[in-house]
Amino acid sequence: MTDLPVFGAGIWHFATYKDRYATDGYGDPVGLLEQIDRAGAVGDLSVVDLNWPFAGYDGTLDDVKAALDRNGLRAIAITPEIYTRDFVKGSITNPDPAIRKRAIELLHEATELAKDLGCSYVKLWPGQDGWDYPFQVNYHDIWNLALDGLRELVSAHPDINFVIEYKPREPRVKIIFPNVARTLLGIEKIGLPNLGILLDFGHSLYGLETPADAAQLAIDYGRLFAIDVNDNLRGWDDDMVVGSVHLVETFEFFHTLRKNNWEGVWQLDQFPFREDSVEAAKQAIRFLKAVHLALDTLDEEALAAAQASHDALASQRLIQRALLTSMAGLEDA
Amino acid sequence: MTDLPVFGAGIWHFATYKDRYATDGYGDPVGLLEQIDRAGAVGDLSVVDLNWPFAGYDGTLDDVKAALDRNGLRAIAITPEIYTRDFVKGSITNPDPAIRKRAIELLHEATELAKDLGCSYVKLWPGQDGWDYPFQVNYHDIWNLALDGLRELVSAHPDINFVIEYKPREPRVKIIFPNVARTLLGIEKIGLPNLGILLDFGHSLYGLETPADAAQLAIDYGRLFAIDVNDNLRGWDDDMVVGSVHLVETFEFFHTLRKNNWEGVWQLDQFPFREDSVEAAKQAIRFLKAVHLALDTLDEEALAAAQASHDALASQRLIQRALLTSMAGLEDA
Amino acid sequence: MTDLPVFGAGIWHFATYKDRYATDGYGDPVGLLEQIDRAGAVGDLSVVDLNWPFAGYDGTLDDVKAALDRNGLRAIAITPEIYTRDFVKGSITNPDPAIRKRAIELLHEATELAKDLGCSYVKLWPGQDGWDYPFQVNYHDIWNLALDGLRELVSAHPDINFVIEYKPREPRVKIIFPNVARTLLGIEKIGLPNLGILLDFGHSLYGLETPADAAQLAIDYGRLFAIDVNDNLRGWDDDMVVGSVHLVETFEFFHTLRKNNWEGVWQLDQFPFREDSVEAAKQAIRFLKAVHLALDTLDEEALAAAQASHDALASQRLIQRALLTSMAGLEDA
Amino acid sequence: MTDLPVFGAGIWHFATYKDRYATDGYGDPVGLLEQIDRAGAVGDLSVVDLNWPFAGYDGTLDDVKAALDRNGLRAIAITPEIYTRDFVKGSITNPDPAIRKRAIELLHEATELAKDLGCSYVKLWPGQDGWDYPFQVNYHDIWNLALDGLRELVSAHPDINFVIEYKPREPRVKIIFPNVARTLLGIEKIGLPNLGILLDFGHSLYGLETPADAAQLAIDYGRLFAIDVNDNLRGWDDDMVVGSVHLVETFEFFHTLRKNNWEGVWQLDQFPFREDSVEAAKQAIRFLKAVHLALDTLDEEALAAAQASHDALASQRLIQRALLTSMAGLEDA
Repeated sequence: MTDLPVFGAGIWHFATYKDRYATDGYGDPVGLLEQIDRAGAVGDLSVVDLNWPFAGYDGTLDDVKAALDRNGLRAIAITPEIYTRDFVKGSITNPDPAIRKRAIELLHEATELAKDLGCSYVKLWPGQDGWDYPFQVNYHDIWNLALDGLRELVSAHPDINFVIEYKPREPRVKIIFPNVARTLLGIEKIGLPNLGILLDFGHSLYGLETPADAAQLAIDYGRLFAIDVNDNLRGWDDDMVVGSVHLVETFEFFHTLRKNNWEGVWQLDQFPFREDSVEAAKQAIRFLKAVHLALDTLDEEALAAAQASHDALASQRLIQRALLTSMAGLEDA
Repeated sequence: MTDLPVFGAGIWHFATYKDRYATDGYGDPVGLLEQIDRAGAVGDLSVVDLNWPFAGYDGTLDDVKAALDRNGLRAIAITPEIYTRDFVKGSITNPDPAIRKRAIELLHEATELAKDLGCSYVKLWPGQDGWDYPFQVNYHDIWNLALDGLRELVSAHPDINFVIEYKPREPRVKIIFPNVARTLLGIEKIGLPNLGILLDFGHSLYGLETPADAAQLAIDYGRLFAIDVNDNLRGWDDDMVVGSVHLVETFEFFHTLRKNNWEGVWQLDQFPFREDSVEAAKQAIRFLKAVHLALDTLDEEALAAAQASHDALASQRLIQRALLTSMAGLEDA
Repeated sequence: MTDLPVFGAGIWHFATYKDRYATDGYGDPVGLLEQIDRAGAVGDLSVVDLNWPFAGYDGTLDDVKAALDRNGLRAIAITPEIYTRDFVKGSITNPDPAIRKRAIELLHEATELAKDLGCSYVKLWPGQDGWDYPFQVNYHDIWNLALDGLRELVSAHPDINFVIEYKPREPRVKIIFPNVARTLLGIEKIGLPNLGILLDFGHSLYGLETPADAAQLAIDYGRLFAIDVNDNLRGWDDDMVVGSVHLVETFEFFHTLRKNNWEGVWQLDQFPFREDSVEAAKQAIRFLKAVHLALDTLDEEALAAAQASHDALASQRLIQRALLTSMAGLEDA
Repeated sequence: MTDLPVFGAGIWHFATYKDRYATDGYGDPVGLLEQIDRAGAVGDLSVVDLNWPFAGYDGTLDDVKAALDRNGLRAIAITPEIYTRDFVKGSITNPDPAIRKRAIELLHEATELAKDLGCSYVKLWPGQDGWDYPFQVNYHDIWNLALDGLRELVSAHPDINFVIEYKPREPRVKIIFPNVARTLLGIEKIGLPNLGILLDFGHSLYGLETPADAAQLAIDYGRLFAIDVNDNLRGWDDDMVVGSVHLVETFEFFHTLRKNNWEGVWQLDQFPFREDSVEAAKQAIRFLKAVHLALDTLDEEALAAAQASHDALASQRLIQRALLTSMAGLEDA
C-alpha cells in the first residue's frame, strides 16, 4: 500500500448541534477543548479546521494550543463565523455598510489568528450571503459586493491562502457562490494568487455537479486548495458519514485527485447529529482507507483506455473490481 | 366577494429561529405572550396553533389565555414538541421503550391541554421519527411502532381530533409519514374516526406531489382535517411566504378545497427567518385574499368543461384571467 | 454460496431507442427475434418480459416461441403498450371514452396472450395516464377512472396476476400511480387478490422513497409481485446499469427481499442507449452476483442488533465489510 | 404601453414529437413548410429558429424562404442537429476523431446556411456531449475537446455570432455546458467576441440557478446573445408553456432584461407534446404580453429601494401589485 494521506476534520464534527426544531440541541454542549480531545481520540486525524470566534469558550488561546498539542493535532485552517446572528442577511454582501465593515474586520482578525496558529488557509464560507425570494436583491450589485469584499480581504494578506467553500444553498435559499464554475469566475476576476477553492464533495453532489469533474476544473485553474468529504442523498447537505451512500463517486473523486498528484488533506466535514462523533470519524476513515487501497489496485492503464473511448461498461468493471475487493485487504474492516 | 375564510397561523411564525449555523438565533428571543401579541397585530388572524411545552415560558396558562383573548385569538390546535432533544432518535418510534413511553405521556398531556383550551385538534408532527442512513432501521418494525403508538394515543381520546402532518424529510433524512398516500394507508389501518391529516402545502410540493391532488385524495377519504400554507423552491421546506413563488398551484389548491366545500382555516406555516413576522403574515394574507377573490371570478363551468377534456391550454387561460386580475379588485394591494 | 436467483430482463433492454432529440434512433433497429437472441447471449437470463403489440414484427407467434426456446428463455410477463400514439393523453384514464374502451380491449388481448405464453403476470405501466399542467384535470375523476378501469380488467381474469409498475413521472409530468403507497391505496380499494405491484428500484429511488422500505411495505400488504432493477442519479429515470451508482441501497433492497423470503425474479429494466446491450446485462449480473454473495456473508444477527437500536454506524460497518469484499469471492470479476 | 418586444419561436415548437415510449410519435408528422405555416398562424411571431439538416424535408431552400416570406417570418438562427444518431456519443467531444471531424463539417455547413438566410446567430446545443456514468470519461480531456472544437468553428466565421445553449442534462445524464458560469468560463477561455450564450429560462430553472441572476451575469460579461422561454417543475426540462407555473420568476427574468436595456427576441422553446401547437404559442404570448404590461406598471423606484435593503416583503408586494393586475389591462385575456 502506498503511504496513507493526511486525514483531517472540521472541529465542529465533534460538537453537538442545534437546528430549527431541536433548538435545545442534539445533546449536551461540548466545549472546544473537549472537541479537540475527541478529535484526538479518533486516532487517525492529524489536522483540524477551527471555527472562530471560539463559541462558548472563555479560556485562553494557549489552552487551545496545548489541547491541540497533546492530541497530536495541528490547526490547518480557521473558519470565521460570518453566518451567525449579526450576519443573517449577509456578511460581505450585507445591505448595511456597517455590517459589511464588521464582517471584514472579523475576517481580518481571523486571518491574524490563522497566521499565529500556522494555518495553511482561512476558509470563507459565506452561507448567509445570497437571497431567499425572487426580486429580493439586485444580482449585479450583490455579486460585485462579494468580489469587492474578497479583493479587499485577500489582497491585504498575501502571506496566507484563502479558500471559498461554495455551496448551492442553506442557510440562504440561494448562496452567491453556489458551484465550482461561478466561484472560479469570481476568483479569476479578482485575480489574486492566494485565493482558491475548498471543494466540499457533498456540496458538489447535491449542486448537480459531478464532484470529480468539479475537482478537475479547479485543478486545471490551479485553484483547488482544499477539499472536504461527507455524503448525502443528492437533495440537501446532509453531511452524512463518507461512504454511506456514494461509494463510486467518492472513489472517482479521490481518483481524480491522485491522477493530478494533488496532495492535500483528506478532510471530514460531517455532522453526526445522532451518532457518536468519534465513531463517525472512525467509520469514515475506515472507508477512506479502503478507497486509498482501491486506488492502489485499480488498473490505471486499462481505465485510461476505457475512458479514451468513453466505454462506461469497461470502466465500471474495472472500478468495481477494485472497490468491491478493497476491504478484503484492510485489517480494521 | 363571498365571505372571507378564517385565517390562522402557527404561533412559531412570530418567534425567532435558530438553525445549525446561526446557533445564537436570527434575532432576540421572543416570549410566548409577545408572540401572541404579534399574531394579534396582524389584524386578520382569528386562530393560532400553539406549541407545547411552552418553551422558555414560565408564566401561567391563564396568562396565555388572557393574551389570546385580548388579541381576539383562539387556540385551534396544540402541537406537542416531540422533536426536541429527548426525541432526536424518534418519539413514538424511538428504539428505546422508555423514551417511547415518555413521548406518549407527553402526547397525552398535550391532548388534555388541547381539550382545556377548546382546540379543534392535536397536531402530530413526527419529524424525528424516521431514519438517516441505509440499513439503519428495520422498516417493518418502525412502521408498526408508529401505528401502535398512534392507535394507543388516538383511541384514548375519542372526544378530540388528531392530525398527522406528513413531511418527506427534515430534520430526519427520511420521515415515516412522508406523503399523503402513506399517511392515509396508516390511518386506514388504524381505523379510528378521529385521526386525519394536516396537509402542509409546501411539504406536498417538495415531496413531488401535486398539492391539489393530495388534498382531493385526503378529502375523498374523509381525512382532510386541516391545512397549512407557505411556499418553497420544490427542493426543501423553505417555509417562505405564501404566494412568493407558486401562485398557480396555490390557487389550484384552494380551488380544490372550495370545490369540495371544505371549510377549514387557511393557516400559515411560515418561517420568516430574516423578515418582520407581522409583515410576513400581512403579505401572505394579502395574497390569500387575492386568491379568494380569484376563486369568486373564476368561470367554474368553463373550467369543468376544459378539465373534462384535459385541455391544459383552455384551463390555463381561464385561471390566468382570474388570477392576473385578482389584485385589481383588492383595496389593500 | 446459496443458490443464485433467477435473472430476467425486459426485452426492450436489447432493442435500440429513440428519444425526442435522436428521433432517428440510437442505432439500427433491432427486430424482436434478434432482441431475444441477444437476451439469450447474455448467458445468465432465464426469463424475459415482452412488450405487446410486437412493434415492427410481422412474423408469427410460433416464431417468437421458437426464439425463446432456442435461447432457453421463458416469457414471464407481457407489457401491453398503452403509452404509444393512441394513448398519449391516457389509456384507462383517457378523457375520450372511445379511447378508454380501446385501451381496455388491448389489455384484454394482451392478457390472453400472456395466458397463452404461460406468463406469471401482465404488467400495467400507465405512463401516459396523468397530467402535465396545473388545473388540467379533475383529480377526483381521473383517479376513479383509473380504479374503475383496473377493476374491470383485473376482475375479468382471475386466473392470472396483474402488476402496476408505479413511477413518479415521464412521459407525463405526473403519473397517476407515482409511489408505492398511492398504488397500494388503489389496490386495496379495488380489493382483488390478483392485482399487485412491480417495484422498479429506480422509480422508487428518484421518487424520494427508500426502495427497501417501499419493498417492505408492499410485502407487508402481500402485494409485491415483481421487481425491476436499474440505477439513476435520483433525479430522473435514467435506467442505468444496476450497481453503477447506488451500491448500498441496491444491496439493502435485496437484503429486504431475502429477509422476507421473497423469491421472485431479479429482473433488469435498463436502457443502454449508448452501450452494447449484451455487455450491459452482463455487467449488471456480475454486480448482482456480488450482491448475492454479500448477502451470504453479511452478519445478520449483528445487523439485527444494530437496527434494533437504530445504530447507523454499526450497520454501515457490517454492510461495508460484506459489500466491499464481495468481488474477492467472485470468479468472473 | 411601451412597444411590444419581437416574439419568436423554435420551429420545432410546431412539429410533432417522439420519445422513448411513444416511438410512433405524438401525432402525424408535420413537414417543415407546414411547421412554418403554423408559426405564421400564431399571428404574433416575427422570427423562427430553424433546425438543420431539414429532417424529412426534400424540397428546395427557396421553398423554405418562400414559406417564411408568406408568413411574415425571418430566420433568426440555425440550430445544427449535432445530437442525432451519428452523434449520440458526442459531437465535438466524440471519442472518435472521425465523428468529431464530421460534426465540425456539419457545423461549418450550417453556418454557411445561416449566413445565406441572414440569421443573427448559429445556435450550438451539445446535448449529446457529456457523460452518463461515473468514471466514463476523462473530464480534463472532454472539456478541452469542447473548447478546441468551438475555437476552431467560431474563429473561422468572424462575420456571424454563435451561441451556446447550456443545459444541465438530457439526453446525456450530464452535459459539458450545464450552467451559465461554466459556459462563461469556457467562452472567456476561448476569447472570441462572436461566441455568447443563449439562456434558456427552463434550463436555468431546473439547473438550480435563479434565471434572472444567470441573465445578469451573462449580461455583465457581454455574452447574453439570445434567450428562450418555457416552464417546468424544476426537476426536468419539461418545456411547458411559459407562465404555466413560474409567473414570478419569469417576470423577474424579463425585468432583468429590461433593466439592462437588453433588446433581443422573446423566444419560445416549448414542446406542446399533447397540445395544439398554435394555441400553445398563443397562450404563451398572451402571458408574455401581460408580463410586458406589468413591467410598464411596476414601480421601479420603489423596487430599487426595496432591493437596496434586501427587503423581500416590500418587493413581493410591489411585484404582485403589478403582476396580479396585469391582465386587467389586456384586451385579449
